[in-house]
Amino acid sequence: MDYNQKSIQAREGHGGGLFTGLKALPENKEALSVYYSPGIAGPCLEIAKHPKRAFDLTIKKNTVAVISDGSAVLGLGNIGAEAALPVMEGKCMLLKHFGDVDGIPIVLDTQDTDEIVETILRIAPTFGGINLEDISAPRCFEIEARLNEKLDIPVFHDDQHGTAICALAALINALKVVEKSKETIKVVISGAGAGGLAIAKLVQQWGIKNIVMTDSKGVVHCDRDNLTPAKEAFCTIENSQSLGEALVGADVFIGVSKGNVLTPSMVKTMGVDPIVFALANPDPEMHPSLAVEAGVAVMATGRSDYPNQINNVLVFPGLFRGLLDHRVKKVTDSIKLSAAQTLADLVENPTKDYVIPDPFDPKVAPAMAAAVLS
Amino acid sequence: MDYNQKSIQAREGHGGGLFTGLKALPENKEALSVYYSPGIAGPCLEIAKHPKRAFDLTIKKNTVAVISDGSAVLGLGNIGAEAALPVMEGKCMLLKHFGDVDGIPIVLDTQDTDEIVETILRIAPTFGGINLEDISAPRCFEIEARLNEKLDIPVFHDDQHGTAICALAALINALKVVEKSKETIKVVISGAGAGGLAIAKLVQQWGIKNIVMTDSKGVVHCDRDNLTPAKEAFCTIENSQSLGEALVGADVFIGVSKGNVLTPSMVKTMGVDPIVFALANPDPEMHPSLAVEAGVAVMATGRSDYPNQINNVLVFPGLFRGLLDHRVKKVTDSIKLSAAQTLADLVENPTKDYVIPDPFDPKVAPAMAAAVLS
Repeated sequence: MDYNQKSIQAREGHGGGLFTGLKALPENKEALSVYYSPGIAGPCLEIAKHPKRAFDLTIKKNTVAVISDGSAVLGLGNIGAEAALPVMEGKCMLLKHFGDVDGIPIVLDTQDTDEIVETILRIAPTFGGINLEDISAPRCFEIEARLNEKLDIPVFHDDQHGTAICALAALINALKVVEKSKETIKVVISGAGAGGLAIAKLVQQWGIKNIVMTDSKGVVHCDRDNLTPAKEAFCTIENSQSLGEALVGADVFIGVSKGNVLTPSMVKTMGVDPIVFALANPDPEMHPSLAVEAGVAVMATGRSDYPNQINNVLVFPGLFRGLLDHRVKKVTDSIKLSAAQTLADLVENPTKDYVIPDPFDPKVAPAMAAAVLS
Repeated sequence: MDYNQKSIQAREGHGGGLFTGLKALPENKEALSVYYSPGIAGPCLEIAKHPKRAFDLTIKKNTVAVISDGSAVLGLGNIGAEAALPVMEGKCMLLKHFGDVDGIPIVLDTQDTDEIVETILRIAPTFGGINLEDISAPRCFEIEARLNEKLDIPVFHDDQHGTAICALAALINALKVVEKSKETIKVVISGAGAGGLAIAKLVQQWGIKNIVMTDSKGVVHCDRDNLTPAKEAFCTIENSQSLGEALVGADVFIGVSKGNVLTPSMVKTMGVDPIVFALANPDPEMHPSLAVEAGVAVMATGRSDYPNQINNVLVFPGLFRGLLDHRVKKVTDSIKLSAAQTLADLVENPTKDYVIPDPFDPKVAPAMAAAVLS
């Protein structure tokens, strides 16, 4: 039985992976009077007088909404709200297990940017943070920006920033392994969706100057018509047109596109000691078994059955733990860079098979929580 | 320390009364592969193909949103979204404890009818039912009606129907105690908000013909200008103008208004063996200690420290249990009448001090769950 079937079977009859737990039982008249009527008027009046007390007296203290419109779910595409719900539940399970954060999955019956923003603004008073998930580009950029402008709780689009933080952490260590400097390398990013553009932005902020992006039409060249503003910010003026051409002499390939677009022969045209992060799921841009033959120096994927698994679970549970604990209002660029550096630093002696911590390393979540303060 | 203070203290530092529980722990690679990537694609694809499978494979199976705009919270009035959150959490605690239903509190940063309807429609795919709470009249009627028209999951405004079901159940038994017939009695309802109008509607459907409502302006008389449609449906043509005048010769007083509006001297003008349900919280329309002196035959209040506590917790947890188990799409009038009769029937031998079951009677929730089928 494959994992898809196992996952259905694990949920069948149970109604998903989450339930509502009670911190106290309203099991007698006294408890009912404290946790409901008439005592409940106490916290209500207290919050009416001092709105910030909601962070002490209600679930807002520790609760993050995990919200999707179902438009870009895993590699499955636009499967809609209800079909996206299992992923949101899974995310909430990871938030709880790794970060002790209470996640509430919310899937939206709209894919209109204005309506999504409106809806999230209206339900926001319940929550201490918002995790956006599986919302397609370029709408996700506008949605995140508008929410960040209006809300005073942190908004984090994991497909963008979780992926970018992980990728940068792995890249920091991979460059140590191959002894190259960020100032002089060329990075080619395959895939100019939410993940690819966020990676481009973050590695640029870290100090990488030569970045070439490719999408389904080839290299994101500044000459191309109808580029979205997000892509235009990372267009190139170099002469390459295809992924293969862009890779000639490049030092790093980062793929957030689709399976098997990177061939060993393309890798052989890259510079010395090429770094390949093939992050498409479940089929990476190049299967790790081909890496040695192709001459890859450091290989990372999203897969748990090979070394160097780049998995967002390294980031979001601990990050939200820190954001909630310290009531951080925005996930700034500086927090993202600090998170990536912190994650990289957890690997004391990077090697080609160990550039990023294991998802089950218990040091990770506390370190990420602390990273929000820097 | 009073209950308000105890309630604050119980929450202080804990962040409310709820947490997210996990049905399985993603504690190793195998579990992570089943409950998240890559296996999670299985349930997603299954639901994309067969949308109703969301009721088997996700939290939709057992989850009800408890939603308020904070416009009419307890007796506290319009205190806004965040200040209403403790009540919604308390409600979710009761849903779980008494009905094993997973409630998710959602408070809304809008009090506009259209926006509330839109927002709830957009977040609805997550949930198996919607419990509206503490939304002021008359907006609550329109909101509930529009949601019921558009959604195929049950929508239940507890302040209306929970209160009405409880009140009718108690009335059915109180009439047995005083040996009066529903066809001939006069019922005066003090308070023409959500609760009062829902009580009027339900007792009328049960068969009571002579109902007079009063509000802050006195008797809801058909001559009055600017009656809302909801009040107009229950206006009277009798000559009384004040609550006191309406009560002369009446058999039943039901109060869902405010404390101490009913005096012993008013009760003395009522018919023989008057029934008084003084449901305002925390101060009833007449304190139960005055009932004997006033000649009340059957007295009920919302208070837990006197007999005959009319408490919605008798209804909503078991009712939602039944609605979810049987995937009922609408809470029809027939379900409401059946719930009231079922609740009344749980009291085998009604007496003046026992017209409604105790909130902790374990027979209640299963009986209410079964009542949805009739």
